Amino acid sequence: MARMLSLAAHPLGLPVLILAGKSDEPAAQVATTQTGSLESDDDLKSFLSKVDVITFESEFVDVNRLRSVLPDHVKVFPSLENIETIQDRLTQKKLLDRFKIPSSPWLPVDGKEDLRRAREKFPEGFVLKQRRFGYDGYGTFVFKKGQGDESALNKTQHGFIAESFIDFRRELALSLVRSKNGVTISLPLVESVQKNSRCFSVMGPVAHKKATDLVKKLKRMMNEIDYVGILAFELFDGRSGLLVNELAPRVHNSAHYSQDALSCSQFEYHLRAGLDWPLPKIELMRPGFAMINLLGEGGDIRLSRKPLGHLHWYGKAENRPGRKLGHINVLAGRPKEALKKAQLWRKDFKL
Amino acid sequence: MARMLSLAAHPLGLPVLILAGKSDEPAAQVATTQTGSLESDDDLKSFLSKVDVITFESEFVDVNRLRSVLPDHVKVFPSLENIETIQDRLTQKKLLDRFKIPSSPWLPVDGKEDLRRAREKFPEGFVLKQRRFGYDGYGTFVFKKGQGDESALNKTQHGFIAESFIDFRRELALSLVRSKNGVTISLPLVESVQKNSRCFSVMGPVAHKKATDLVKKLKRMMNEIDYVGILAFELFDGRSGLLVNELAPRVHNSAHYSQDALSCSQFEYHLRAGLDWPLPKIELMRPGFAMINLLGEGGDIRLSRKPLGHLHWYGKAENRPGRKLGHINVLAGRPKEALKKAQLWRKDFKL
Repeated sequence: MARMLSLAAHPLGLPVLILAGKSDEPAAQVATTQTGSLESDDDLKSFLSKVDVITFESEFVDVNRLRSVLPDHVKVFPSLENIETIQDRLTQKKLLDRFKIPSSPWLPVDGKEDLRRAREKFPEGFVLKQRRFGYDGYGTFVFKKGQGDESALNKTQHGFIAESFIDFRRELALSLVRSKNGVTISLPLVESVQKNSRCFSVMGPVAHKKATDLVKKLKRMMNEIDYVGILAFELFDGRSGLLVNELAPRVHNSAHYSQDALSCSQFEYHLRAGLDWPLPKIELMRPGFAMINLLGEGGDIRLSRKPLGHLHWYGKAENRPGRKLGHINVLAGRPKEALKKAQLWRKDFKL
Repeated sequence: MARMLSLAAHPLGLPVLILAGKSDEPAAQVATTQTGSLESDDDLKSFLSKVDVITFESEFVDVNRLRSVLPDHVKVFPSLENIETIQDRLTQKKLLDRFKIPSSPWLPVDGKEDLRRAREKFPEGFVLKQRRFGYDGYGTFVFKKGQGDESALNKTQHGFIAESFIDFRRELALSLVRSKNGVTISLPLVESVQKNSRCFSVMGPVAHKKATDLVKKLKRMMNEIDYVGILAFELFDGRSGLLVNELAPRVHNSAHYSQDALSCSQFEYHLRAGLDWPLPKIELMRPGFAMINLLGEGGDIRLSRKPLGHLHWYGKAENRPGRKLGHINVLAGRPKEALKKAQLWRKDFKL
């Protein structure tokens, strides 16, 4: 994510400094880099003394540590307060509830007693999710009707929430970007397909009769909490309408299509919003688009060079099974046509 | 140019190494860099030991030096032979003549006697051009009817050519890209406007009834000399049809529009061609496009953040009058509309 944020920042004339663990990380290959750890006060202080504005590729930052070393002159977007709320699934759920944004029924789970209550309340089954540091299925434990392993409770000390199983027809996603001055723009609604709890493909734009209403609520929420930057929403399209599944306070896999399908990518939108620059209106370059993730399979890599769309390779050092190594974007006259073309092109990659 | 080549290379998964004079140069900000001089054998050797393929942002390279240190395993595109031919205006002219490609009448000029002959042959006036290292009006001396300063002859030891004045209606430009396997693709014909011998703006696509015929000849030439990569042609549109003014064996200012106006930029085309990857067909994202150069004026810089198009800033350290600091690309329903919008946007920049 930091790599693609950098690639979007360069043409805009923004001098970029990356704080990276290693000097050969994806972002370090494409921008000036300082090696260091987000867990080290010294590294953070040294880094922060050289920058004016910071943003994040991941919400899993130690907000308290950062707060304690943050110099007055450094601006942060999204705010540490908002990151803190969203990085914890419990406070994230409370935030959604506060703004009456529909999401799956849930319960906090701190121990066996709570787990018993969850079994009672969600007899059809539920998902136990770590409050913190969960992503792409990590930190998520499925409790089917009457089943499920209680030892999951020992996997983290940060606590859990239990979310009722949701009967959904398809998964959708949506990113909204809000700038400091209060303007909020909604990127197109897209349909996403997950495989093994990982985003596999996205196509769009798609329509949903309840989208307008939901977007209105989400905008109100973003206004009220003074959210600045891009905010990604994973959605369930189910019998009861649109439910918000998860929030991510950052650029998101489900909006990578925007690099080629929109006149302004999610990366540029995020930067513009954080710097209080005017936001371009949404403009589709073609009526349909699709994105497919290039997930590692652990073998020898052969990238397809067929001219069938746009490749975005991340330059990761290791090819591990399931690892996101890059993605492809394809445009076409209709969303499904774009997805078909992308699927065909995907077959020419060896990962 | 190296900066924008790098930005195009990253998503394609090409690991980039830049040989740059200083570590804060535009390209060094966005790619892994080795500082060194193109004039130093040691620097070249060290650099070349680390790469597989090289290409250039400028044709003004010491071809003989490079040849003498080039390891066997390193591929070069365009070939050093082709760069050598084109970097010298005399051999460039001979190349055009050999393929019967129309260009302005010319004479070699090595001293006063040749200059006298040029005055005789071109009584309406001519332009004296250094054979080597001339660009953007540097190394170009105008000899109007009966006028002109002979001391120009002392400006270089590389010799000159004299080119007859050409009565032209407008200047056009065209880039062709040829891959190793022989496929050649023509980018759209564009109209360019020069100010003070520097490219100021470009708009396109434009039509010219003789373009098809010219492109055929240019392709034949590129095939015959086995040219690999992008080759830019500056053209005069005059009474006698289309004349080739100059060639540049590299990505070129007149094709910067391609970053946003085409589905594949000139930078990506150049890289694909040199690596023998298939070349995408030309696909316009909108029916009209325009590019305006952001030329330094020596003052305090204020970049416009209005969402009226695409900014491409080069990150140069110094703002000198006339220096190319960046450019803007604007798309629209028609070429002239794009140019108008770009001109309007340009006014919001302070350079």
